[in-house]
Amino acid sequence: MEQRISCITLGVRDLAASVAFYRALGWAPREDDLDDVFFFSAGGLVFALWDRGLLAEDSCVVDSGGWGGITLAHNVRSEQEVDAVLEQARAAGARIGRGGARTEWGGYSGIFLDPDGHPWEVAHNPGWPLRDDGSVQLG
Amino acid sequence: MEQRISCITLGVRDLAASVAFYRALGWAPREDDLDDVFFFSAGGLVFALWDRGLLAEDSCVVDSGGWGGITLAHNVRSEQEVDAVLEQARAAGARIGRGGARTEWGGYSGIFLDPDGHPWEVAHNPGWPLRDDGSVQLG
Repeated sequence: MEQRISCITLGVRDLAASVAFYRALGWAPREDDLDDVFFFSAGGLVFALWDRGLLAEDSCVVDSGGWGGITLAHNVRSEQEVDAVLEQARAAGARIGRGGARTEWGGYSGIFLDPDGHPWEVAHNPGWPLRDDGSVQLG
Repeated sequence: MEQRISCITLGVRDLAASVAFYRALGWAPREDDLDDVFFFSAGGLVFALWDRGLLAEDSCVVDSGGWGGITLAHNVRSEQEVDAVLEQARAAGARIGRGGARTEWGGYSGIFLDPDGHPWEVAHNPGWPLRDDGSVQLG
């Protein structure tokens, strides 16, 4: 198994609301998508939004209804950009879990929760430089 | 907010067991990692394994204890490779949610569950060609 991930699918309860939220963050789904699933090109992988019940069934799991042990992160190039993205998320309707602040690992980060409560850490990590295309260069 | 993901962190209950599982799949963490978190370079992003309780706290969420609405996918270049990766996962201790089979979207996929029950779809999707480096080219 090669060391890479092809797609991250978030199960959502109100697909239109979730698509509107991610659009408000500046994300754009593939143009020709159908109405029941939305795909976003995110670097070399795909980010997808799909009905949570259908995703649970397709994934052969029982839905706990809450958070299940996976957190996504979006790294940026400065502390100011962390604050700006958190503010953009708040304006788009996200709940802010914690505002931007220094972290014990030497960076700066905050957390927003999307409309379904999926957490995103927005982080500036000086130890993980970003390439021009935004991909992470793991030290 | 740029349209990309920097890190996916999986919360796990037995870090050593999870690291051993992903090593058995052929994945290798960064050499200099500490004992309490492991980072894997996965294309342009980072895949991390960390204690589930600490991740929940850091993510400002309550842990449901089960699946929480996120599924990862690993796409490969052929149906045979789907079967091979599922077999590799089974041999590494994964539970197979469903074996490789044709899908209604015109591809072929199966599901394995990692030691914490995090689902991975292993898929061949003729509509999403893979570049030489394995990244997905969204049609």
